[in-house]
Amino acid sequence: MKETDRATAEGILFTDQYQLTMAQLYYRMGLHERMAQFDYFFRSYPNYGSHQAGYCVNAGLEWLLDWMAEARFRERDIEYLRSQTARTGRPIFAPDFLDWLRESGSFAALTLRAIPEGRVVHPNVPLVVVQGPLAVAQLLETSLLNHLNYQTLIATKASRIHESGRGRLLLEFGLRRAQGKGANAGARAALIGGADFTSNVGLSHALGFPPKGTHAHSMVQVFMALGEGELGAFRAYAEVYPDDCLLLVDTIDTLNSGLPNAIRVFEELRRKGHEPVGIRLDSGDLAYLSIQAAKMLNEAGFPDVAIVLSNQLDELVIWQIITQIEKEAPRYGVDPDHLINRLVYGVGTRLITSQGASALDGVYKLVAVQERGEWVPAIKVSETPEKTLNPGHKHIWRLYDRRGKATADLLSLDDEDPRQMERVLLHHPTLHGVYRVLAQEEIAEIEPLLVEVWREGRVVADLPSIEEMRAWRQADVERLDPGVRRLVNPHIYHVSLTERLWNLKQELIRQLRR
Amino acid sequence: MKETDRATAEGILFTDQYQLTMAQLYYRMGLHERMAQFDYFFRSYPNYGSHQAGYCVNAGLEWLLDWMAEARFRERDIEYLRSQTARTGRPIFAPDFLDWLRESGSFAALTLRAIPEGRVVHPNVPLVVVQGPLAVAQLLETSLLNHLNYQTLIATKASRIHESGRGRLLLEFGLRRAQGKGANAGARAALIGGADFTSNVGLSHALGFPPKGTHAHSMVQVFMALGEGELGAFRAYAEVYPDDCLLLVDTIDTLNSGLPNAIRVFEELRRKGHEPVGIRLDSGDLAYLSIQAAKMLNEAGFPDVAIVLSNQLDELVIWQIITQIEKEAPRYGVDPDHLINRLVYGVGTRLITSQGASALDGVYKLVAVQERGEWVPAIKVSETPEKTLNPGHKHIWRLYDRRGKATADLLSLDDEDPRQMERVLLHHPTLHGVYRVLAQEEIAEIEPLLVEVWREGRVVADLPSIEEMRAWRQADVERLDPGVRRLVNPHIYHVSLTERLWNLKQELIRQLRR
Repeated sequence: MKETDRATAEGILFTDQYQLTMAQLYYRMGLHERMAQFDYFFRSYPNYGSHQAGYCVNAGLEWLLDWMAEARFRERDIEYLRSQTARTGRPIFAPDFLDWLRESGSFAALTLRAIPEGRVVHPNVPLVVVQGPLAVAQLLETSLLNHLNYQTLIATKASRIHESGRGRLLLEFGLRRAQGKGANAGARAALIGGADFTSNVGLSHALGFPPKGTHAHSMVQVFMALGEGELGAFRAYAEVYPDDCLLLVDTIDTLNSGLPNAIRVFEELRRKGHEPVGIRLDSGDLAYLSIQAAKMLNEAGFPDVAIVLSNQLDELVIWQIITQIEKEAPRYGVDPDHLINRLVYGVGTRLITSQGASALDGVYKLVAVQERGEWVPAIKVSETPEKTLNPGHKHIWRLYDRRGKATADLLSLDDEDPRQMERVLLHHPTLHGVYRVLAQEEIAEIEPLLVEVWREGRVVADLPSIEEMRAWRQADVERLDPGVRRLVNPHIYHVSLTERLWNLKQELIRQLRR
Repeated sequence: MKETDRATAEGILFTDQYQLTMAQLYYRMGLHERMAQFDYFFRSYPNYGSHQAGYCVNAGLEWLLDWMAEARFRERDIEYLRSQTARTGRPIFAPDFLDWLRESGSFAALTLRAIPEGRVVHPNVPLVVVQGPLAVAQLLETSLLNHLNYQTLIATKASRIHESGRGRLLLEFGLRRAQGKGANAGARAALIGGADFTSNVGLSHALGFPPKGTHAHSMVQVFMALGEGELGAFRAYAEVYPDDCLLLVDTIDTLNSGLPNAIRVFEELRRKGHEPVGIRLDSGDLAYLSIQAAKMLNEAGFPDVAIVLSNQLDELVIWQIITQIEKEAPRYGVDPDHLINRLVYGVGTRLITSQGASALDGVYKLVAVQERGEWVPAIKVSETPEKTLNPGHKHIWRLYDRRGKATADLLSLDDEDPRQMERVLLHHPTLHGVYRVLAQEEIAEIEPLLVEVWREGRVVADLPSIEEMRAWRQADVERLDPGVRRLVNPHIYHVSLTERLWNLKQELIRQLRR
C-alpha cells in the first residue's frame, strides 16, 4: 500500500460502511447528538480447540486513544464520501451531513471510562464504557473493536505461555507470520502479557525496549556454500559478537555437528576472555535435544549458557517439553530443575496469531440512551440468554476474599456501592434464583475497576507504562484461584450482577416481550 | 501508536533483530555484497483442522513492492541502532556498518522475479525469487514474509468461501475482529481471492471499490429505547435510504417481529415507487430462517429481494446451509435454487483471520551464493525430507493437459526449457524413483510462471489490477481438477522436479552428508 493510501485506510475511515450510513440516519432524524452509552466487552474466553483460557489480560487501550486523538475527517475523506453513490446513482451522503462530519466528526465529544491495560479481565464485564453523542459514539465502534480485540487476545495468549514456561525468559518472534501490520500491535500486547522481549526492531524502538535475536540458518548456509562450513560460520559470529554469542546449532545435525562446533567456539571464546550466551534449537524433539545439549554443555564446562527453544511453541508444547524433561533428564545425569531454569522460549506464529483462537469475540453494545435528560436503559434480547445485554449505566467491582484471591467481578447500577452494603448479593447473570451472598467480613477488599481515561478530546488519566502493566498483570494473575489459572479446563471465574441490576434486566426483558 | 512511532515501526525497521546482526556480520566478513539468491515459498496448504486447502491464491506482492520503494534508513533509525548495546554495554552496531546501512541499506540493488498476484499456487514452488547483495537480500526477509504470507492466506480462504457459496455475492465484514491493522491487507486479499466487496471504508477508498453495509442492531435498539420500536427504526431507514433499503431483522424476533415489520416497510416503499434491496439474518439457524424468510417474502410479493446471511460463516457453514436448503426448502413450498440464488454472504472473522489456520508457513530460503563469478547452489538438509530445500537457480513451469486442466507445476534448472523437451520427466520432489513422463502430445501448454517485477529500485512489470487478478484466479481455479478444488480432503496437485534438478539436489545432499 502506498503511503498516501495508508493515511486514508488507517485514518478515520478505518471503519465499516454501516457506521456512516447509521450516522447519517441519526443526523437526518435529529438523533445524532442524543447522548448514548456503549459498553465494550467480550463474551467468552479464547477457546484454542483443545484448551481454553480461564482469564484474559486487558490490552490495546493506549493505541486506541492515540488513534482517536489523530483521527479526523480530512477534506479528501469528505470528498470520497461525497462520491459514493446509491443503487440509483444518487449520492449516498448528503451535503449537510458531510458538513456536520467535517465540523463534528471527531471523538472530542466522547467520554471513556476503562479498565487499565494489564489488568486481568473476564467475559461480560465492560472493559470500556463510551458516553457521548450517538452518531459519534457509533462511528467509534469498528476501530475500538479492532484495537482492543486483538491486543487483548494476544496479551492473554502471552500470559498463558509465560505461565507454562514458569516465568522463564520469553521472546516474541512472530513478525514474519503475523497477520500483516497487526504484527506491531501483537508484539506490544505480547510484551504486556508475558513476553520479555521481541525480535521486532521497529516496535522495540517505538516502545523503548531492546530487540532480541542472533542468526538464522541462512548464515550457516552461506559459509557452507563458500566452503567454510558450520564451524566457520560460528567462528565468524563469535568474532563479531564475542559477548553476545548465541549459536543456532540445528542447520546440519544438532548433536553431531552443531553442538560440537558450538562447544569448540565457546572454548575459543573463553580463552579470549569472553563468556558465551548460549545455543538455540529450532527443530527436532526439543525435549530430547535440550537434555542432550545440556549434558554436552555441562560436560564441556558450560553449565550456565542458555538453551533457547523455538519452532511452533505454545503453552501446551512448552508444558509437554518441561514435563518430559522432568521425567527423562535424570536418566542422562542431567538435573531437570537446572535445565528448566536455563531454558529460554522463542515463540512466534502461535503467539502472534493466537493460533486456534484467532479472534476475541469482543462487542460494542448500546446500553443506554438519553431521553428528555433521563437515561433510558437499552436492551437487546437474544435467543441465547448469555447474549442478552446487561443494560444501563454500571459500575464494575472486583471482590477479594480473605485469602486475597479475587472471588468475583460484580456489575452494579451506577448509584450502588457494594462497599457500603452490609451483605453483598452476587446474582448469576442469566439463571433465575442462582446467587450467593457474602457478608462484608468475608470480603477483604472491593476494588472499583473503571477509570476515566478520555474527555474533551484528550487522555485524562496517567496511562501505565508497559512495566506497570506487567506488574498489574503479574499481581492480578497471582490473585486468581489456581483453578482459574489452569491451562486446560480452567475453573470458571464468577461474574455477577447486583440484585438491583438483575431486577432491572428482568424488567426490561418483560417489557420487551410484551 | 502515535504517528511518529508508526513511521518507525512500519518502515525499514519492520524486521527482526537478527537480520541486522547478520547483515553486520556479512559486512565485517566482506560478504555483504556477495550476490545471493533467496526463494520465497510455502511448504503446505492451510490446514483448518477439519479441512485443508488444495490450492492457494497468490497475493500481497504489490504492497510488498510499495513498501520496498519507500523503505530506507532514516537518520533516526540509524541513531536508534547506534544506541543498541550488547551485554557488556558496548554498542552492537559499529559506525562503519551504520554508514554502509545509511548509504546502501535500501532495496535498489535487488532483482525480484515473482508469480503474479491472483494466480493459483502450490507448496514448494518459489513464488518470489530474490537476487542481490547478500546483506540487502537478507534484510528483506522479514517484511517480505509478513506481506506475502498473510495476503496469500486470506486470498486462499476467500476463494474457498466464494466456491462454497457457488459464486454468489460475497461481502468481507471482518475489520472489527481482524488482527489489528492487518485488516486492510486482509480485506485487499479477500477482494483478490473471492470477495466482491468489503465493508471497510478506507481500504475500499484506497482500492477504488464502493464499500458495502447497512445498519446494526444498535440502530433498532435506539428506536426501541426511544419508544418507536423496530418498525420506527425500519421506517427511518427506508426514509433515508429508499433505494438501498436492506433491513436487519433479528434484533427482537426474526419471524414474529423483524420480517413482518420489514415486509410492511417494503410495501410502503413500493407504494412510493422504490424497490427494497433485502433483509439480513445475523443469528439463529440461518438455513431454517432463510427458508422461512423466503416464504414470507415470496408470499408478500417480494420474491427477488436479497437475503443476506452473516454470523460466523465460513466455507463449511455455507456449504451446510446450502445443503440443508436444498433438502428442506421444498417442504415449505420454497424453490431451493431460487432461494440459493438470492442469498448473499457477509463473512467476517473466519475469513479475515483465516480461522483454524491463522498463518501460512511461507519461508525465505537461501538457495545460491556467488563465488568467483559462479553461482554455487546452497542447500539445507532437514531430518524431515519435505523440508530439504530445492537448491539453485530455477524456472517454474505449469503444465496443462489435453483437457486444459493444470496437471503439474514443474521446477527446472535455469537453463532448462521443458517446451523444448521431447518428453518431460516429472520427478517427485522427495521420493527416489517416483516420477512420471509426459510426451509433448499429452501436454496442451507449458506456461512459465515467473515474471521480473523489480529491478534498480523500481517496479518493472505492469502489475495487474484487482479485477485482472480476479480474472486470473477464476481462470486458474477452473483449470484445476475438480478433485483439487474439493473443500474437504482435496486431491493432491503435483509439484515436480526435472531430472537434472532432482540429480543436483541429491548430489548436494550427498556432499553434505560426507
